[in-house]
Amino acid sequence: MQHQANPIVCLNEAFAVYPHTLKKEPRVAYAGTRGSYGEEASLSFFKHDCELFAYKTFEDVFVALSQGSIDYGVLPIENSSTGSIAAVYDLLSRYQYYIVGEQEIKARHCLLAPKGASLERISEVYSHPQGFSQSEEFLKDYPDWKCIPYFNTAIAAEYVASQNDPTMAAIASKRAGDIYNLSILAENINFSQTNVTRFVIISRQIELFENPTRVSIAFHLPHRPGALYEIIGIFSVFSLNLCKIESRPLLKENWEYLFFVDFTGNISQNTLVNLLPIIQEKAEYFQFLGYYPQYEEK
Amino acid sequence: MQHQANPIVCLNEAFAVYPHTLKKEPRVAYAGTRGSYGEEASLSFFKHDCELFAYKTFEDVFVALSQGSIDYGVLPIENSSTGSIAAVYDLLSRYQYYIVGEQEIKARHCLLAPKGASLERISEVYSHPQGFSQSEEFLKDYPDWKCIPYFNTAIAAEYVASQNDPTMAAIASKRAGDIYNLSILAENINFSQTNVTRFVIISRQIELFENPTRVSIAFHLPHRPGALYEIIGIFSVFSLNLCKIESRPLLKENWEYLFFVDFTGNISQNTLVNLLPIIQEKAEYFQFLGYYPQYEEK
Repeated sequence: MQHQANPIVCLNEAFAVYPHTLKKEPRVAYAGTRGSYGEEASLSFFKHDCELFAYKTFEDVFVALSQGSIDYGVLPIENSSTGSIAAVYDLLSRYQYYIVGEQEIKARHCLLAPKGASLERISEVYSHPQGFSQSEEFLKDYPDWKCIPYFNTAIAAEYVASQNDPTMAAIASKRAGDIYNLSILAENINFSQTNVTRFVIISRQIELFENPTRVSIAFHLPHRPGALYEIIGIFSVFSLNLCKIESRPLLKENWEYLFFVDFTGNISQNTLVNLLPIIQEKAEYFQFLGYYPQYEEK
Repeated sequence: MQHQANPIVCLNEAFAVYPHTLKKEPRVAYAGTRGSYGEEASLSFFKHDCELFAYKTFEDVFVALSQGSIDYGVLPIENSSTGSIAAVYDLLSRYQYYIVGEQEIKARHCLLAPKGASLERISEVYSHPQGFSQSEEFLKDYPDWKCIPYFNTAIAAEYVASQNDPTMAAIASKRAGDIYNLSILAENINFSQTNVTRFVIISRQIELFENPTRVSIAFHLPHRPGALYEIIGIFSVFSLNLCKIESRPLLKENWEYLFFVDFTGNISQNTLVNLLPIIQEKAEYFQFLGYYPQYEEK
């Protein structure tokens, strides 16, 4: 792991110009393709006022940030059914970049097919495996359909459109249907479970937008009983609400763990610059990941 | 969430017949297809002395357990690059089954192609997206190859075998190559990173095999600062090593969290039956997931 420039110094520098304002039409990148939930998260967060770039992998987005060819990356960090996306946490550690915002996106799947298709004629359905499992209840009524797993839901929609075969359908977002000019045969077919993905907005530097309320940090503790207990006690002393905690094995070091913690509460600049050095001192490794406004449903 | 039969009573009943012995040739199920890492985990844990069944989804394995058509399920619960597999944790909560063992499997990818193929003629490669990213360094030498993502590595190998086209290759395990009669064009091509998946062995009842050392539990805490701090203090008092902690949002209840905790240490029956009721009393929901021997590399 690379070592971070003194996060307290960086944080104080950022506070000196608080609040930052989003620049007009920033260059924003997501991983995926047109019509994907990553694109939707980007457009929602930046309110359509951005220049969008699609990259193939999560790391491609970090590389683009490091080369200065984009201003922000938008990547999924937690999904309500698949859990935290460890690869993005690992990349945040490796590149030492910061979270400056978050955006939640609810998956609302549709059954999409070429114009002129009907439910009765469908025989093959393409989607991401999660698209199938989230639409399980709907699919039970069509036991003869062959479900063919695909890389992601938007690519499945693109493929079905390219084949223009009325026996083929895709499970993807309404937006993907619009983009690839497909008809909606059934809407909101994932009624059996809520599926929400939390995306984070990533920047090369700390940027503090108005009213930040959530702090993300990562640390590695010395291997002795009670080490985590002491750290969590510190949050308690400052009356902060620990809203997410997660341990990730550092495989190279004998199953020692890196902890990722998010906390919320009445967090002033003062609290933060007092709290963080205490944790930094107790930890063998410490990384400040960001201080940003929590997503609020409109 | 369903409520568990009193876990302390069940645990004491299990201790009364400790240690359990694995029955001969149990019926074992994994999710995936022949040649997958799930199959490898099953064969490794049961030392080839089992009758194997492959199911399509994680839940299919739980359903088979509930119907009594299999004795054990083998499912991935944590991967070193993608993190914890939340869907399996959710199913453990929903079905109230138990973890009775664990098995780690290292991904060692090969480039596989039909007999007679050579590196020079390959133009298309099929694999799971993770297969590509883990073999990134190798693939950099072949920038013209088209990488086509597939549901899983073993299915990619099966597909390439079915096409019998010497310009097509798959990235999958050596075992998948043997099963689908493919040649190995390059071995251990995922040299750039370690990729380990931890599988758990799931049973309908608590079974305590010899020398259990790891305990898994899940709980939901009342929403007040310090609640988690108190619980973690209990582990400290009993000198137990908290080796994994993870929070999962309970989406239906306003982003409240369910915690999954694994701990290890010198855990006697006495410690366990004293410790668990204390946590159970402080938690709003408590689930005992299992007490089992940790995986040890041979």
